[in-house]
Amino acid sequence: MAGPFTLAQIASRLGGRVVGDADIEIEQVGSLEHAGARQAAFFGSPRYKAQLAATRAAAVVLAPEAESLTALPRIVCQRPYAYFARLSLLLNPSPVPVPGVHAAAHVAPEARIAGSARVEAGAVIAAGAQVGERAWIGAGCYLGEGAAVGADSRLHPSVVVYAGCRIGARAILHSGAVIGADGFGMAAEEGRWLKVPQIGRVLIGDDVEVGANTTIDRGTVDDTVIEDGVKLDNQVQIGHNCRIGAHTAMAGCVGVAGSAHIGRRCALGGAAVVLGHLSLCDDVQVSAGTVITRSIRKPGTYTGLYPFDVHADWARNTALVRHLAELAARIGALEENGKRRKKRNG
Amino acid sequence: MAGPFTLAQIASRLGGRVVGDADIEIEQVGSLEHAGARQAAFFGSPRYKAQLAATRAAAVVLAPEAESLTALPRIVCQRPYAYFARLSLLLNPSPVPVPGVHAAAHVAPEARIAGSARVEAGAVIAAGAQVGERAWIGAGCYLGEGAAVGADSRLHPSVVVYAGCRIGARAILHSGAVIGADGFGMAAEEGRWLKVPQIGRVLIGDDVEVGANTTIDRGTVDDTVIEDGVKLDNQVQIGHNCRIGAHTAMAGCVGVAGSAHIGRRCALGGAAVVLGHLSLCDDVQVSAGTVITRSIRKPGTYTGLYPFDVHADWARNTALVRHLAELAARIGALEENGKRRKKRNG
Amino acid sequence: MAGPFTLAQIASRLGGRVVGDADIEIEQVGSLEHAGARQAAFFGSPRYKAQLAATRAAAVVLAPEAESLTALPRIVCQRPYAYFARLSLLLNPSPVPVPGVHAAAHVAPEARIAGSARVEAGAVIAAGAQVGERAWIGAGCYLGEGAAVGADSRLHPSVVVYAGCRIGARAILHSGAVIGADGFGMAAEEGRWLKVPQIGRVLIGDDVEVGANTTIDRGTVDDTVIEDGVKLDNQVQIGHNCRIGAHTAMAGCVGVAGSAHIGRRCALGGAAVVLGHLSLCDDVQVSAGTVITRSIRKPGTYTGLYPFDVHADWARNTALVRHLAELAARIGALEENGKRRKKRNG
Repeated sequence: MAGPFTLAQIASRLGGRVVGDADIEIEQVGSLEHAGARQAAFFGSPRYKAQLAATRAAAVVLAPEAESLTALPRIVCQRPYAYFARLSLLLNPSPVPVPGVHAAAHVAPEARIAGSARVEAGAVIAAGAQVGERAWIGAGCYLGEGAAVGADSRLHPSVVVYAGCRIGARAILHSGAVIGADGFGMAAEEGRWLKVPQIGRVLIGDDVEVGANTTIDRGTVDDTVIEDGVKLDNQVQIGHNCRIGAHTAMAGCVGVAGSAHIGRRCALGGAAVVLGHLSLCDDVQVSAGTVITRSIRKPGTYTGLYPFDVHADWARNTALVRHLAELAARIGALEENGKRRKKRNG
Repeated sequence: MAGPFTLAQIASRLGGRVVGDADIEIEQVGSLEHAGARQAAFFGSPRYKAQLAATRAAAVVLAPEAESLTALPRIVCQRPYAYFARLSLLLNPSPVPVPGVHAAAHVAPEARIAGSARVEAGAVIAAGAQVGERAWIGAGCYLGEGAAVGADSRLHPSVVVYAGCRIGARAILHSGAVIGADGFGMAAEEGRWLKVPQIGRVLIGDDVEVGANTTIDRGTVDDTVIEDGVKLDNQVQIGHNCRIGAHTAMAGCVGVAGSAHIGRRCALGGAAVVLGHLSLCDDVQVSAGTVITRSIRKPGTYTGLYPFDVHADWARNTALVRHLAELAARIGALEENGKRRKKRNG
Repeated sequence: MAGPFTLAQIASRLGGRVVGDADIEIEQVGSLEHAGARQAAFFGSPRYKAQLAATRAAAVVLAPEAESLTALPRIVCQRPYAYFARLSLLLNPSPVPVPGVHAAAHVAPEARIAGSARVEAGAVIAAGAQVGERAWIGAGCYLGEGAAVGADSRLHPSVVVYAGCRIGARAILHSGAVIGADGFGMAAEEGRWLKVPQIGRVLIGDDVEVGANTTIDRGTVDDTVIEDGVKLDNQVQIGHNCRIGAHTAMAGCVGVAGSAHIGRRCALGGAAVVLGHLSLCDDVQVSAGTVITRSIRKPGTYTGLYPFDVHADWARNTALVRHLAELAARIGALEENGKRRKKRNG
């Protein structure tokens, strides 16, 4: 922890307007529900009004329109959640790695490790690999030949980066992430699969976060590219030759098939799937659980999700999904009858 | 193996009633299809009658209503599958770890490892971590600062537990499980994502099993909680701040988004998804492949699954799903016409 | 790289007919879009005609019907993608491992490692395990007691093979793959789950590829079997007691629940799910995102995918999915009215 800070000190660093006692000291953030003395919570949505009323937090971060909802000392600001993020980062700064290569790490003599970098026990770094200033390679990580990790990046324990792949600055890769495994390239030949060598790389920009057990495949001949500021949650799968545009975010369990190109500032909900060779333009939102089967050329929100129901109701309705064409034909016949009758009677 | 045991010995330990030769010795369990001499199989469903008739097992475990379906020596009991589980555990007791810290494990001097615990080669245990009596930390596992593993728990190779997370007694964590990676907390600000530090922990109760490559994220400020007896299959993803109630089970590839609260004794089928901030009450069953998009307050089974079909039939019917509102309008028009006609004619 | 080769040399090794300058030297494959001098690209689909026209590749591999679409030196052949795979393999042969057990690997004295095999730093190999000729065990891999890896197989870093599991020859296992974790076998008893010991193994045939972070569970009592030539992409989950037929391929994020039997030469699209205890015959194609809920006895393509749409349109149509039975009843009533009217009027 870096604090405590008074509300006045916080506002002078992060902006916002203090209402109430500006000398209150804050040493940690907390939730409305569990924050105690010396903790600041944030109020982001009217659905948490009851929690705001009951909170024992020392102070609250909230938007101007919510200013009068509490008598607690508070910081009023435009985007309380972003403010809360900055406040939490102020109180919980990212740890700076203690430099040095652990005696039980295995670094090839031809690898280049910056003097300010940290390499933990059990990490294995192959020839030609590079680790930038203040980068932190966790226990049991593996960097293949010629792989590169940029300055201030952190690989948590057990991350694997295959040969030749490059990761930019200030990246965070969580445990179990695998960067640069072979793409799923197979040519069918006489009932068997012929492996297509995967000789492209994975190129990851700056300020990217990759979740635990997420996998990003290397390209077949060209590279798979993850642009700056992309945020991937856990268990995301990115196929070979994909390009993911800057500042795009994907929630857990998303799958993007090979050669899909996704624009900038897109957001994919959990377990969404994008099929191969498609293009999504910038600023597309895909709802959770949706499978995208055609390219999207217009920003907006897209959804394709079967509605859940009590099982018996689902069973009754869903049986008819497989007979929709029949239902439509019966409607057509009724309309036809109506027209004939009208003609006859008219 | 701990056997052999005669049927009489088995029944005296586990209950049930022996029919036929009680002196037959059983040394292992097997399937109806492949069990041989000295093996016991179980019969749990009438759909396996043919296998029961053909089995070469030495004995069969079955329910009273199935008692007369075979002439083989048998143990009759109320819940044959649970009995089979106990019998298999009797014949295949969990191995007790040989205590000791391997010379090639890296344990910080400030960590506390119980004398009866086992730590295998390549494991890395950071300062302040605790490992309980008879716990077993597999090769290449990582325990972060202040992480704790309870008595009699087993971490198979390559499990990562981030700093501060706690695992109870008698847990089983399979390889590749990642406990306590950062939750996916981002605040949008001017087209970029601002990381919200994830300072909560993961707290896992007693008797929990976590499958291979399953991920459970640490909380944003409060903790992510997995209660006693929860069973998670492989590749399950649990988001930050979730609470999973006691004895709930989730099959492979389930995803639970952040801040979802799931009750006790729930069961989620494979690849089911629960969206964020929802609550499921106790005793909810979610079918495989179902996405839960609203809170559930009533026990029962819930399903939302698009029915599969031969591709051409699917294509014909599915095209109409996108025109359901139109179809409904046409039905409405026909009904309206009918009413007008009735009025006119009546 | 193994080249360069002239087009004439390539054709003499791999077949095909050279059109244009057969003495051009090729040292690498490339994409139509990015290939440069000394690189060969392939043209596989008319949708890439523009790229073919603009390519700066030195030569192109294409089918007879496309022969006249370019004036570049070219190799004409029946299946250009399979040819391209062979050409790439010629230019990028799989690396042969430098034999030897790294000083920082931990191999039990009772394990048998072939003299031509390679075991990298941090790998842990338990008693009774076997590693075949020219096999390559990457950094941080784990082989449990009695596990076996066949000749010429490669385990990339951080693969875990549990005790007793067997992998055939020429396998490729990508990082984070977990072979042989316990199947999800639980018997319900009084609101709790009783673990069923998982004593079967995983048996993997020859020429199998397993993607990054893919998991294959051991059988309950019988074995889980992956036949020859099966190709699994990343993050696939195969449950206990499954049998996957020879030369079947599964794209990323597929889940196959326990005891499912899948035939030969099947292909499962990304994120498809097969429920437990089902059988799929040979030559079944399952579309991406489809959940298979019944056994399939006839080859063909099967799909079950909710069509995505602009969110507002989806919302309007999808509300009616839960009222399909009602819509069908209204159609029935209209038909009934029509019949009654006809009777009356006729």
